[in-house]
Amino acid sequence: MLSKKNEQYIRSLSLKKFRQKYNNFIIEGDKMVSELLVQVPNQIERIFALPSWTNQYDQKLKKTGVSVQEINERELKKISSLKTPNQALAIVQQWEPDFQSTQLEGGLSLYLDGIQNPGNMGTILRTADWFGIDWVVCSPDSVDHFSPKVVQATMGALFSVKTVRRKVEDLTLKKLNLPIYGAILKGENLFRTTLKQEGLIVIGNEGQGIRSDILPFVDHPISIPAHHKVRGTESLNAAIATAIICATFRGK
Amino acid sequence: MLSKKNEQYIRSLSLKKFRQKYNNFIIEGDKMVSELLVQVPNQIERIFALPSWTNQYDQKLKKTGVSVQEINERELKKISSLKTPNQALAIVQQWEPDFQSTQLEGGLSLYLDGIQNPGNMGTILRTADWFGIDWVVCSPDSVDHFSPKVVQATMGALFSVKTVRRKVEDLTLKKLNLPIYGAILKGENLFRTTLKQEGLIVIGNEGQGIRSDILPFVDHPISIPAHHKVRGTESLNAAIATAIICATFRGK
Repeated sequence: MLSKKNEQYIRSLSLKKFRQKYNNFIIEGDKMVSELLVQVPNQIERIFALPSWTNQYDQKLKKTGVSVQEINERELKKISSLKTPNQALAIVQQWEPDFQSTQLEGGLSLYLDGIQNPGNMGTILRTADWFGIDWVVCSPDSVDHFSPKVVQATMGALFSVKTVRRKVEDLTLKKLNLPIYGAILKGENLFRTTLKQEGLIVIGNEGQGIRSDILPFVDHPISIPAHHKVRGTESLNAAIATAIICATFRGK
Repeated sequence: MLSKKNEQYIRSLSLKKFRQKYNNFIIEGDKMVSELLVQVPNQIERIFALPSWTNQYDQKLKKTGVSVQEINERELKKISSLKTPNQALAIVQQWEPDFQSTQLEGGLSLYLDGIQNPGNMGTILRTADWFGIDWVVCSPDSVDHFSPKVVQATMGALFSVKTVRRKVEDLTLKKLNLPIYGAILKGENLFRTTLKQEGLIVIGNEGQGIRSDILPFVDHPISIPAHHKVRGTESLNAAIATAIICATFRGK
């Protein structure tokens, strides 16, 4: 049985203001919720799932002591934001890993400067996980990485990529011993640049690119050159550009 | 004034069956419609736009002789599929460039084997344009590349990337003198493979990968290696994988 109160609470978490108020968010679907059980069980507040699902994960559920409530398909449909609701939905506590900017030194990390599209944000986290990016630091005005569309697009990478939100000034970039790469339109050819396995890669907003509060810190401006046959396209999608840059760093 | 009939007709084109029936589709927004006017004016059936827009493009509109109907913001909102309707909307005739599979020889092309997500399809076309991909051949069951979400995600690349829909058997791959690359999970390391500037790159469906009717033709299986730190992510998004592969071909 799903109470009206729970229904309303879960629905409210599709909005950022309620996610922030309660410090909770929603994770949905068999694959994501079962992954959640393995990776960060302590963050789970409660799982709502079909009886077939709770039977399947009975052992794991008991082991973690997570609170589970069985609901039927009609109830799941009411609270799901997926086109095709998929067996389980979890209310999860938001988390933020401990972070100090000196931790950026020695590894490869991303700074997302105002990424707005949830699909882009989720895809960037998924890609960052694949390429072993240490930190993804988001500007405070980037899209909330706990929003439903972001969470789904990460395909589970949300559990493993260390993601924090920080203003540029809080990074004290001047004091860090770290090359700052930035994807801009007229930078050095990415494929001909010497790339270290250490640095902060700045990715700009989808429309405006990298803003003036961080641009002066970029000491390695890089560009992804278009092939000579390029016809009408003026730029690459932000998640695509991020992926090509990460791949080129790791592939050299 | 927008007639009820036009309103219904335009709305119907959000569905594939009506796009196929009438061989038309919709392009929206100031930037896309103005680009359309420059790139493929002969395909335009009619433009519906705010008076401020038609004033701005008065010269171009007269030169091309395109039929334009002025509407107000309220009417535009009725027919737009954008969250924020943007000045203009065009009914456009679908097109398919002349294609014979021997044209794949000598260049770099993509075969999309059942790509389902419209955002992925649009982003792949945008990326293909950037990297000068000659042809994008889609399996007939791939998402319709004239669907509104695909069109928007291409950011204009739809006008310049030669896109056709063909069954695998119609490509007569055996007869072609062409390396066939395929993105699979356990292929050769993309970054360590010798890549020619010629070939067909096969990209599989988001969930299932490359299907068995084309897999036997893949004579160069390639993989994008995950960094050793990879934690939970099992794969890359299809559009991301495509972009990394195209970039690596062009960047070598």
